[in-house]
Amino acid sequence: MSNPPLRIGVAGLGTVGIGVIRVLSEQSSMISARCNREVKVVAISAQDPNKKRGLDLSNYIWYSDPLSMATDENIDVVVEVIGGSSGIAKDLVESALNNKKHVITANKALIASAGLDLARSAEHVGKTIGFEAAVAGGVPIVKAIREGLSGSNIQQLFGILNGTCNYILSEMRETGRDFDEVLGEAQDLGYAEADPTFDIDGVDSAHKLAILTSIAFGCEINFDSIQIEGIRHISPLDIQFASDLGYRIKLLGMARKTEAGIQQRVHPCMVPVSAPIAHVEGVYNAVVTEGSFVGRTMYEGRGAGEGPTASAVVADIIDIALSRNTNLFLVPTVKLERMQVAPVSSYIGSYYARFMVTDKTGVFATIANALNDNGVSMESVLQRGRSKNEAVPVVLTTHETDEASLIRALEAIERSKVVFEPPRFVKIESF
Amino acid sequence: MSNPPLRIGVAGLGTVGIGVIRVLSEQSSMISARCNREVKVVAISAQDPNKKRGLDLSNYIWYSDPLSMATDENIDVVVEVIGGSSGIAKDLVESALNNKKHVITANKALIASAGLDLARSAEHVGKTIGFEAAVAGGVPIVKAIREGLSGSNIQQLFGILNGTCNYILSEMRETGRDFDEVLGEAQDLGYAEADPTFDIDGVDSAHKLAILTSIAFGCEINFDSIQIEGIRHISPLDIQFASDLGYRIKLLGMARKTEAGIQQRVHPCMVPVSAPIAHVEGVYNAVVTEGSFVGRTMYEGRGAGEGPTASAVVADIIDIALSRNTNLFLVPTVKLERMQVAPVSSYIGSYYARFMVTDKTGVFATIANALNDNGVSMESVLQRGRSKNEAVPVVLTTHETDEASLIRALEAIERSKVVFEPPRFVKIESF
Repeated sequence: MSNPPLRIGVAGLGTVGIGVIRVLSEQSSMISARCNREVKVVAISAQDPNKKRGLDLSNYIWYSDPLSMATDENIDVVVEVIGGSSGIAKDLVESALNNKKHVITANKALIASAGLDLARSAEHVGKTIGFEAAVAGGVPIVKAIREGLSGSNIQQLFGILNGTCNYILSEMRETGRDFDEVLGEAQDLGYAEADPTFDIDGVDSAHKLAILTSIAFGCEINFDSIQIEGIRHISPLDIQFASDLGYRIKLLGMARKTEAGIQQRVHPCMVPVSAPIAHVEGVYNAVVTEGSFVGRTMYEGRGAGEGPTASAVVADIIDIALSRNTNLFLVPTVKLERMQVAPVSSYIGSYYARFMVTDKTGVFATIANALNDNGVSMESVLQRGRSKNEAVPVVLTTHETDEASLIRALEAIERSKVVFEPPRFVKIESF
Repeated sequence: MSNPPLRIGVAGLGTVGIGVIRVLSEQSSMISARCNREVKVVAISAQDPNKKRGLDLSNYIWYSDPLSMATDENIDVVVEVIGGSSGIAKDLVESALNNKKHVITANKALIASAGLDLARSAEHVGKTIGFEAAVAGGVPIVKAIREGLSGSNIQQLFGILNGTCNYILSEMRETGRDFDEVLGEAQDLGYAEADPTFDIDGVDSAHKLAILTSIAFGCEINFDSIQIEGIRHISPLDIQFASDLGYRIKLLGMARKTEAGIQQRVHPCMVPVSAPIAHVEGVYNAVVTEGSFVGRTMYEGRGAGEGPTASAVVADIIDIALSRNTNLFLVPTVKLERMQVAPVSSYIGSYYARFMVTDKTGVFATIANALNDNGVSMESVLQRGRSKNEAVPVVLTTHETDEASLIRALEAIERSKVVFEPPRFVKIESF
């Protein structure tokens, strides 16, 4: 083979780092054939050289300081799988670019927060930052959007971007158990981290959404403007009512171009059971795009785990080996548009709301009046169970309304004291 | 902009050709930004210059002979959307390559039959043949498999590859009408061609499957070895029984690596309603892949039509504009493996079979004995309706068996004269 080998340094030897080494070594001849050149890991970096990692790592040069690896002249590509939006991961990526190396990362937090600066640095040195592994694990969604759909003007996208949340919601629906119990089980199974905050509060989904928005719309990444709500407050009761009404509750990330600007939202939604995305269950992720000419397309697969994430990193390595270059965010950074953020008042849709009330005369009139006073019109009402002493749920769905009006109505209902707890509401998305 | 424009010639001004011109002209500034250079159609070719095509074509150089366009020195990329596996389309592609132009085609028949020779020619001159539009319309499945999943060793793939057939089967299920009636309606709606043979007999699906097999497995394309069966014989009765048993009937293309070699099949299958592909309805296409490390991924979208197909052609144009090159069939042609074709006797699975019988003592014993004699064991039996005089259907599903044994059993049953018509059978795929 006449082309020189592509030499890889892997920084971070957790699940993904070990996975990358495994994918490359177990399939080395296949990958070399696809790249028309040898691809080999030459160096690795992690804090503890003595930790058992289930692989023989003795053939690789060991760096206890990843920043030293970034200056190694025998490395062409640095794979950053340390994680974290700042600190050593960011320093490493910057240093690797400054030393004229390609970078591949699975770090969505880093791209979501510093992606624009990193893209400028990469352009400056003429190197690539690959980040396919940062969104939807092994599903090549970054490639699909930036390249496969590049002939289309994407108007909206939405997706299930966090496998932990989707697993929890799927389990809650199938077993009727509550959030805390299923979360504990997910932690035991390794589907949720010991500190699950980033996942269950929607932050991880928002990092991924910020990336998808930018590569789909060609605008500067804007994580801070995302409206984020997690799944902690979703109750088995809401999941049951959703089923009764013909919906499933999914945590979605959604980005939409509107006349008022770009909406970016992460929150639980009710989606009709007839929608394909309603059937994406467990740890699977899925992304749906809608664009000019091509219409609607959907992509689905495992959103995390050693194998899928490592597979995405290796796909980026193969792109680099073949000199297939892509603008980090769809267009060169100088052409990225500043994002015009749509105000929350522009959010329009139907909603589900649940009230815990006593079964007394006048309660429903109070609710109906508050909705009416704020211009919110009801589509359907459902009451389950009757009790003079205990709280019983009343749920309703609204016709199309703006979210601000709904929130004003719910606040008025809460102030009126007919409810035992603050009303819950979930947006209905009729994809 | 400092890069020279990329100059396109479009041969064939049917739906797709006009679509390509429309996508490029309506989105010219967006596409130029994504390509870092201008992309412009400079020449077009079709037989009749006077035909109304709904677009102003007066700014383009007109070639009534596409082969003359292939020699135009002011063209960088020839888009072949004439169609047909031989004749002018093939001559044009060969001539364009010989004249050192990139080629983009939506022509699955051409790639399926002559792809290997064309790939060699393209390598010889160092040019690209793009054919994203040849499979699954606007869904970037060629890119997903060749690039996005290139870190994975794909073991099997299957998909709904023909929108016409999927529309017909969806309509038959929803309305209970028979094949001929729904086909006629599909023709009126433009979802089926005046001569629908290639679609409904599975040939179009097989062309696409041959391409997917080759790019997924890195083997020489082998259309002739595909076992092909279409949907003409699917009756509303079978669709109804499938529903009763928890299945849907879909025309699938399937490729699988087995110890006996590679299986490539196109035929109607029963898929469980719990499988995501069961919910791909109407003119939509979907492809599912299963490979090392990444596991199962799925891709879905509109499989045909002006917009989706043109969008895929334009994605290929953008790849060329950015010099993103890919081996036509995953690896360089010298590294493609000769396909070892698995014999039909290696096909193992469960089957559905339907018999039209008179409701007489002994009939069922005859069927059961024939199955038993051939080593086929039954899983379930279902009878609908009773009549002493008319044929009534008996259906059964089998445990896992090889297809050759099943066929021998069905032939024995047919010879025994207890049935009014040849038994029908459909393979059950438990994805």
